[in-house]
Amino acid sequence: MALIVQKYGGTSVGNTERIKNVARRVAKSRAEGDQVVVVVSAMSGVTDGLIRLAKEITALPSEREMDMLLATGEQQTIALTAIALHTQGLGAVSFTGGQAGIVTDDVHTKAKIQNINPEEVHRALDQGNVVIVAGFQGRTKAGQITTLGRGGSDLTAIALAAALKADLCQIYTDVDGVYTADPRIVPTARKLPEISYDEMLELAGSGAKVMQLRSVEFAKKFNVVFEVRSSLNENPGTIVKEEMQSMEDVVVRGVSLDKNQAKITVWGVPDRPGQAARIFKALADNSINVDMIVQNVSHAGGVRVTDISFTVDKADLPKGSKVIEALKPEVGFTECTADESISKLSIVGVGMRSHSGVAARMFEILAHEGVNIGMISTSEIKVSVVIDLKDGETAMRAVHKAFLE
Amino acid sequence: MALIVQKYGGTSVGNTERIKNVARRVAKSRAEGDQVVVVVSAMSGVTDGLIRLAKEITALPSEREMDMLLATGEQQTIALTAIALHTQGLGAVSFTGGQAGIVTDDVHTKAKIQNINPEEVHRALDQGNVVIVAGFQGRTKAGQITTLGRGGSDLTAIALAAALKADLCQIYTDVDGVYTADPRIVPTARKLPEISYDEMLELAGSGAKVMQLRSVEFAKKFNVVFEVRSSLNENPGTIVKEEMQSMEDVVVRGVSLDKNQAKITVWGVPDRPGQAARIFKALADNSINVDMIVQNVSHAGGVRVTDISFTVDKADLPKGSKVIEALKPEVGFTECTADESISKLSIVGVGMRSHSGVAARMFEILAHEGVNIGMISTSEIKVSVVIDLKDGETAMRAVHKAFLE
Repeated sequence: MALIVQKYGGTSVGNTERIKNVARRVAKSRAEGDQVVVVVSAMSGVTDGLIRLAKEITALPSEREMDMLLATGEQQTIALTAIALHTQGLGAVSFTGGQAGIVTDDVHTKAKIQNINPEEVHRALDQGNVVIVAGFQGRTKAGQITTLGRGGSDLTAIALAAALKADLCQIYTDVDGVYTADPRIVPTARKLPEISYDEMLELAGSGAKVMQLRSVEFAKKFNVVFEVRSSLNENPGTIVKEEMQSMEDVVVRGVSLDKNQAKITVWGVPDRPGQAARIFKALADNSINVDMIVQNVSHAGGVRVTDISFTVDKADLPKGSKVIEALKPEVGFTECTADESISKLSIVGVGMRSHSGVAARMFEILAHEGVNIGMISTSEIKVSVVIDLKDGETAMRAVHKAFLE
Repeated sequence: MALIVQKYGGTSVGNTERIKNVARRVAKSRAEGDQVVVVVSAMSGVTDGLIRLAKEITALPSEREMDMLLATGEQQTIALTAIALHTQGLGAVSFTGGQAGIVTDDVHTKAKIQNINPEEVHRALDQGNVVIVAGFQGRTKAGQITTLGRGGSDLTAIALAAALKADLCQIYTDVDGVYTADPRIVPTARKLPEISYDEMLELAGSGAKVMQLRSVEFAKKFNVVFEVRSSLNENPGTIVKEEMQSMEDVVVRGVSLDKNQAKITVWGVPDRPGQAARIFKALADNSINVDMIVQNVSHAGGVRVTDISFTVDKADLPKGSKVIEALKPEVGFTECTADESISKLSIVGVGMRSHSGVAARMFEILAHEGVNIGMISTSEIKVSVVIDLKDGETAMRAVHKAFLE
């Protein structure tokens, strides 16, 4: 008898028909003798509807009250899911995040899980119940309702799997698993049977939108093996787990393309200590997330100067440019330019560590396609390049073909 | 500085505009220096929508899960009301029933309040906040979410007023207060400035639909003075309170008409001990509420027999008749007849205790109008008669005119 945590997202519980479908899936697992904990999101549309109501009152609602408001979405789904499981002849009991023992800090709308007291969940399981837990939410020590922010339901599932020492954690979504590339761009992309946490993190961080980074980070930290799979079919999904020796045989696990970035270049920055810090502190102070940063070696000459390029989310570009322009008197650079027409192409694989020349081969492929490289950034298991937006998809297909087909 | 508990029903918080309106009302009370606890219902339509979802899954959803589901309605309103109060520049904090310290038994969907721990509410008030509490719900000692059943939000307000030792409890609704009769039937009906708990109970119990009986009973038990008033205007409402000497000057406080009753008569019941008990136990076992019961003296003759008449809700008539028919072999009565075309007219007033001849006068008025009386039932402060449905409204106007104009 295994203990399985299954998480179903908002689309999988989008209406009562789909909730009944989830109940049938859970019943199947129970019939195989497994104990099941189900984590559900709010029905799709419910959270947006609640946010709309709050925004009708004010543009800036209190974060504590938004948690109070939004937590009801998942609470509705757990009750309906329990009711649907009863119609399958199963014992089932629903728990809010707080009732499930999920204790968080008190940072409303983006609370962090501090610990989980799984006694009540264990007790309900031992009584033969399926336990349904509201994703995305918890309770502070003082009894306040909190939410975990984006991707919070995945996090609930993975954290519960860790606390319950579950044998398996399944993240049900509307895709079949993790692919070597986005199949909408690369028709020859393949579903990966497995992937390491680090590869998953690098892929998610470079534009592949399967899961939020923090859920994967949490899984890695607590070594929770989980499977990403579809709630719409019976296909096996992708197992995400600790890196194994054999994984290094594959040089590149996946290719991702991020078309949502823009590049800012600050030209002629005087090469004095602290100038880069000034620039990036100003951006951070304005809540602008910077992704890639490249600083070239200084130019020789009278006063040594350097050029600093970095990428930000396209949405942050106007604000980012403004922040930089405002620094001109203080930093004394020559010019600041912005480029929206870029994309970031990344290859990811733990095998890169033991295989040399991977970056060089990627550059060769791009050169062969006539694609110009604007920025390069590498980590131990990733190579990212910034290229023209118009070249993005062609380059992605070429790189996928060379490394993965 | 007074402490006021204000309760707003589903219509008063039916959309965000109305919630803002509630916030303005509360702000006014705060501006006068009072501390305010606000109890709110779910936005009108929300609870019905949730019930519909559950019924899409099964006709008989689990009561525990229905509580989990329905409690979200009020939780949404408290958050939105707090947000609206913030926009009025007021400190405000929302509490679920459980967070407000409302402890209930574990009878899901109709839980009883066992006690209230008002420390957290007091603390929030003392910090200068308006406290918004979700009506209709509580939490068991074990942390389960419960709901209080029909009229539960009124009960929450009155119970909180008692626990907090509030100076005033205001029940805001869509009518101006308690009237001497339903103004839709009796255009000359007047709003009552005050009414005793017992009169309010008898009026509510005889068809006047202002409040559920249990909230008034609770108020009487804990001597909570409350005011029923409109959230749509500034008119003073009706104060409901302990009976005072001066109230006895008024013989009849109000007239009510219940058109939702039906009469069953069991003819020729052998006059042996235990026969009436058999009949009414069978009805109770089938969850049929009986209102009026009249048993005439036995007829003389060979075997002494009697006729028993009683009224039930119209909806229960088919089931009630069936239950009685099934008793025929055991009880040995002659016949069972049913009459749907009845109405029950009642006059209520604590003054009846000290004024004799009130019932006689009512019968005279009805006789003068040519109205035939089918059944009579009296309590210390109420006289009810069953008359033809077609005579109901005319009779009500005549009785109102004679006693109250």
